[in-house]
Amino acid sequence: MPSSVQVGSGEFAIEGSFAVRFEGFKEPRLDRARERFLRTLRSETGIPFLLDAPESSAKFVVHTDGPSQVIQKLGEDESYSLTVSADGVQLKAANPLGVLHGLQTFLQLVRITPEGFSAPAVTIEDKPRFLWRGLMIDVGRHFIPLPVIERNLDAMEAVKLNVFHWHLSDDQGFRVESKVFPLLQMKGSNGFYYTQAEIEHVIEYARDRGIRVVPEFDMPAHATAWFVGYPNLASGKGPYEIGKEWGVLDPAMDPTRESTYQFLNLFIGEMTRLFPDEYFHVGGDECNGKEWDANPKIQEFKQAHNLKDNAALQAYFSSRVQKIVTSHHKIMEGWDEVLQSDTPKDVVIQSWRGRKSLLDAAQRGYRGLLSNGYYIDLNQPASEHYLVDPLEGIQDKLTPEQAASILGGEATMWSEFVDGENVDSRIWPRTAAIAERYWSPASVKDVPSMYARMNEEAVRLQAYGIEPKATEEQMLERLSGDTDPVALRVLASVVQPPKGYEREGLEHNDTSSSLNHLIDTVPPESETGREFALICARIAAGNASESDLHTAQRWLTLWRDNDAKLQPELGKTYLTKELVPLSQSLHTVAEIGLDALDRIERKQPMAAAMQGEEVTALEAAKKPQAVLLLTVAPSVEGLVKAVPVQ
Amino acid sequence: MPSSVQVGSGEFAIEGSFAVRFEGFKEPRLDRARERFLRTLRSETGIPFLLDAPESSAKFVVHTDGPSQVIQKLGEDESYSLTVSADGVQLKAANPLGVLHGLQTFLQLVRITPEGFSAPAVTIEDKPRFLWRGLMIDVGRHFIPLPVIERNLDAMEAVKLNVFHWHLSDDQGFRVESKVFPLLQMKGSNGFYYTQAEIEHVIEYARDRGIRVVPEFDMPAHATAWFVGYPNLASGKGPYEIGKEWGVLDPAMDPTRESTYQFLNLFIGEMTRLFPDEYFHVGGDECNGKEWDANPKIQEFKQAHNLKDNAALQAYFSSRVQKIVTSHHKIMEGWDEVLQSDTPKDVVIQSWRGRKSLLDAAQRGYRGLLSNGYYIDLNQPASEHYLVDPLEGIQDKLTPEQAASILGGEATMWSEFVDGENVDSRIWPRTAAIAERYWSPASVKDVPSMYARMNEEAVRLQAYGIEPKATEEQMLERLSGDTDPVALRVLASVVQPPKGYEREGLEHNDTSSSLNHLIDTVPPESETGREFALICARIAAGNASESDLHTAQRWLTLWRDNDAKLQPELGKTYLTKELVPLSQSLHTVAEIGLDALDRIERKQPMAAAMQGEEVTALEAAKKPQAVLLLTVAPSVEGLVKAVPVQ
Repeated sequence: MPSSVQVGSGEFAIEGSFAVRFEGFKEPRLDRARERFLRTLRSETGIPFLLDAPESSAKFVVHTDGPSQVIQKLGEDESYSLTVSADGVQLKAANPLGVLHGLQTFLQLVRITPEGFSAPAVTIEDKPRFLWRGLMIDVGRHFIPLPVIERNLDAMEAVKLNVFHWHLSDDQGFRVESKVFPLLQMKGSNGFYYTQAEIEHVIEYARDRGIRVVPEFDMPAHATAWFVGYPNLASGKGPYEIGKEWGVLDPAMDPTRESTYQFLNLFIGEMTRLFPDEYFHVGGDECNGKEWDANPKIQEFKQAHNLKDNAALQAYFSSRVQKIVTSHHKIMEGWDEVLQSDTPKDVVIQSWRGRKSLLDAAQRGYRGLLSNGYYIDLNQPASEHYLVDPLEGIQDKLTPEQAASILGGEATMWSEFVDGENVDSRIWPRTAAIAERYWSPASVKDVPSMYARMNEEAVRLQAYGIEPKATEEQMLERLSGDTDPVALRVLASVVQPPKGYEREGLEHNDTSSSLNHLIDTVPPESETGREFALICARIAAGNASESDLHTAQRWLTLWRDNDAKLQPELGKTYLTKELVPLSQSLHTVAEIGLDALDRIERKQPMAAAMQGEEVTALEAAKKPQAVLLLTVAPSVEGLVKAVPVQ
Repeated sequence: MPSSVQVGSGEFAIEGSFAVRFEGFKEPRLDRARERFLRTLRSETGIPFLLDAPESSAKFVVHTDGPSQVIQKLGEDESYSLTVSADGVQLKAANPLGVLHGLQTFLQLVRITPEGFSAPAVTIEDKPRFLWRGLMIDVGRHFIPLPVIERNLDAMEAVKLNVFHWHLSDDQGFRVESKVFPLLQMKGSNGFYYTQAEIEHVIEYARDRGIRVVPEFDMPAHATAWFVGYPNLASGKGPYEIGKEWGVLDPAMDPTRESTYQFLNLFIGEMTRLFPDEYFHVGGDECNGKEWDANPKIQEFKQAHNLKDNAALQAYFSSRVQKIVTSHHKIMEGWDEVLQSDTPKDVVIQSWRGRKSLLDAAQRGYRGLLSNGYYIDLNQPASEHYLVDPLEGIQDKLTPEQAASILGGEATMWSEFVDGENVDSRIWPRTAAIAERYWSPASVKDVPSMYARMNEEAVRLQAYGIEPKATEEQMLERLSGDTDPVALRVLASVVQPPKGYEREGLEHNDTSSSLNHLIDTVPPESETGREFALICARIAAGNASESDLHTAQRWLTLWRDNDAKLQPELGKTYLTKELVPLSQSLHTVAEIGLDALDRIERKQPMAAAMQGEEVTALEAAKKPQAVLLLTVAPSVEGLVKAVPVQ
């Protein structure tokens, strides 16, 4: 949602002769943007636009005042104005960044009507609320192939995110080619890493889309993969193997040896030459200190330097690393833990812990970003992420200057439970809602409007190569061994993964696990489950429409009858066998729901004992089965509780 | 289907430790093939195989005797043997080409069972029946982007096709960068062409997959796009514009001027350096001679050289071109028309006209390929293409040596009605059936078996990036403007484009047309329509099962009731408005079908007059509407005719 929109009358028809003319400042990046824009517009309409249509007769005119920075910089002007009328389109911006955003806004306006494809007449004045609007992808725990990175950058451009935070190393993998220390990738990646040429390509690709690339090399912990090739960096004896389990592992760099800093100086030197962005992320999270405690030399060092605990030792390490980063002309960024009493004021704090750390940091004069609340790996509904505002609840405790030091936020895609196949479905479309939080005015927070628009955006993102619905279908075919798994699709539509960190308690999963189960296949939020919950809430509140009652009846019947069709199929594969109780549960829940619906409609009360039994059954059905939640169980419970008791 | 298969007992389990070891001859191409194989196997299973798993413990052992030719050559040994047992897999081949084929066969064996993913124990000895197994893609009429070409090469590898015939120029576009004559692409392509670097990439890409790339530059006709930049090549006065209409256009090269041959010598010199394959295709089809007739100098030339008609003039041209091709050390290939009385014996004839031309050519000592019958642009069912055999009906008229000169065949994807978005759905999965015709023994021709296997192959090809089902869904969303077009999907499932050249008579379509209508969205063959036809045939013949009757009843009810749901939606977009009568037709046909089914089941006869009226209504419903056929109308007609008449 732009910062300001005025709806006009009429519409601009999109025809085969459509063309875009550039005025003012020109550069090859704008030509490429136009070509990409026309390609996307072709996907959205199916109309074969010409790449070499004459500019002179173009009705879509772009005026760019001047260039943007050679290396995209935090805080550059990203504003634009877009005027669409029946006669033509004007897009104006101070520099190409605003043009890129304006082109994407136009693509969002395109719709089909009884007359053809068109964009409605509208006047838009737009600029972002936050300067740092990021998506972090963890490629350490599971490697994410280059084409997947590319299409996520395409989608980031579509929703105006401007920072790709690339979490490039972790216990389970070191994913960048180092020419200075080649054993990093040779021994630390199982062959899954990006070459420097590929990284340069990604940086160019991102710049074309108005996106900065901030690399993260997590240290001193989350670094086991480094130690396989370079055990001397570590605090333990070694030898090391690439991390296999998730969670907080013990290995950590040895902060007491000068050789560690010599290594890091050479390494950071190489990486800061590779990554042109002004910011360099050194992680710093979750060092449990166990290897430090177990190493007598490190204990001696702490005593000798009067470092009272491991936090102090990590502060010493961070401060040494910060000096190295600064010496290579970069600004250091880190997770909450890097903030210590003597941390230099230019260090940027990324908060995974919450707004309180961000408030602390801002009050002490640091700049910060919020990621807590935007952990898109945790399977929370879009609405929860959407309503998290980096400034809410803390703005009144900050001076305007301090508030401005809250730069924005980042959605974080940690990759314990995703790989290149299903990562898109975890990032999108929910990250479109988060992107709106970062871009649009704070007052834009109507949840039903967000869902309606997000669901349209999900369709639109297919034109950018983000196709989670197709992937889900293919994964369902694979896990069932069936070319048309009708009944399994019905079950899949009403289940979703448990939220937060619950999955880790329900099954053992590590780097060798196959992410091919139903839990890996379904989206983090069941759209059918969400709609059904809204319908049931209206029914329970006594303000349901005819159509609500009809839909509830129809869906419950479908679900009740599905088990009989699905059950004979489930024994056929090792991936569907585990779904036997879940499918039965759906049958039971739907049966209870149909009875409750019938009683509500006929105003027929229910014996208290029966209601109690049904609630007990529904409580059981709400527990994860095959590590999946039956999203409709709580809604049916609401129906049962709405039936009057005798 | 391999040439020889022996099924064993047990199965080879595919686990995370899966690895492939190479023995004998090794080369980087084999390493890349292994990586691609593991990536596809990962797609088929979801299991995260390691790229650097230790070879020593690998249970999948490949032995390659020696290298293949540096430039892949027609007739190289492509055989392999594959033995799968519970303990391991052995793949043996004379050279890497056989290895590539064997790896694909293994991928076809993989299935999911109650115990996990596995391949059944089997012993396969396999080699192709024909040496030339091609797919032609016309990128002249509609440009096909590079990623689409790549994924089609991936799919060709999957089904063991070994020639990519790239139809690179036509009236509507010249698609290759020429450095010698740059106006070819600059004025003849609207900016849609492949750079030489891209072409080199495609050739490498194809070679990696055991595929030769044969370029075609069509001449002397189908060449308007050349003349935009180089009008002196043409027989008319010019100036020329890129062709817009389909069909046989008048412009043709001037065969009488030496400058034409000087141009072609330089051009063919450049292109034969770019394309390493031994064969070079010069088209030669459909020259209507009108520009020749209208040019007095050409008339004079014919008289002076005693060329009695335009065929003789074209023969003169072909013979000059053939000498140029030969001088660049290539073997010329052309369509039927290039075969004249004095054509050198090494010229290869590709027959679009039929097996008779092929027979003639073979009897006269020429080598040939069949494409007639494999025109996958004509929307014929897979079964029709599948049953066309290059040798059937002519083998007994040929000596064994002559029969061997029938090198194989090529599926031809002409692109009047496809672009990069929907071309996959026209090529696949039907071309998998054609590929079996070229590879497998002539006796393999059971149609129901083919359909069952082709439908599984369609699912499998998604792992190679061929996803027509997902594209269809996205196109339905686009044309309806609806995020979940349920009722439109039902209509889409029972319609298909008319066969042959009928579309051209039903609507005007040229290069500016948008291929975004329902006809462009649905597959060439309706699978529901095909299944329904089989069911109705069984019902009419009195040997239907309970399940047949139940399915027919269920489908007909769905179709009858669909119009009421769909009709209110159809007015909303310009692309669905045209479907109003088609949707009504489906309703009417289904109502008639339900009545007929009821009468058949209850053995209740029908008045002759009523049957006559219904047949009339069905005949009307069989006519194209919105340029689409209602596939179920003929089947319902069969039902109606099966009802006894009073």
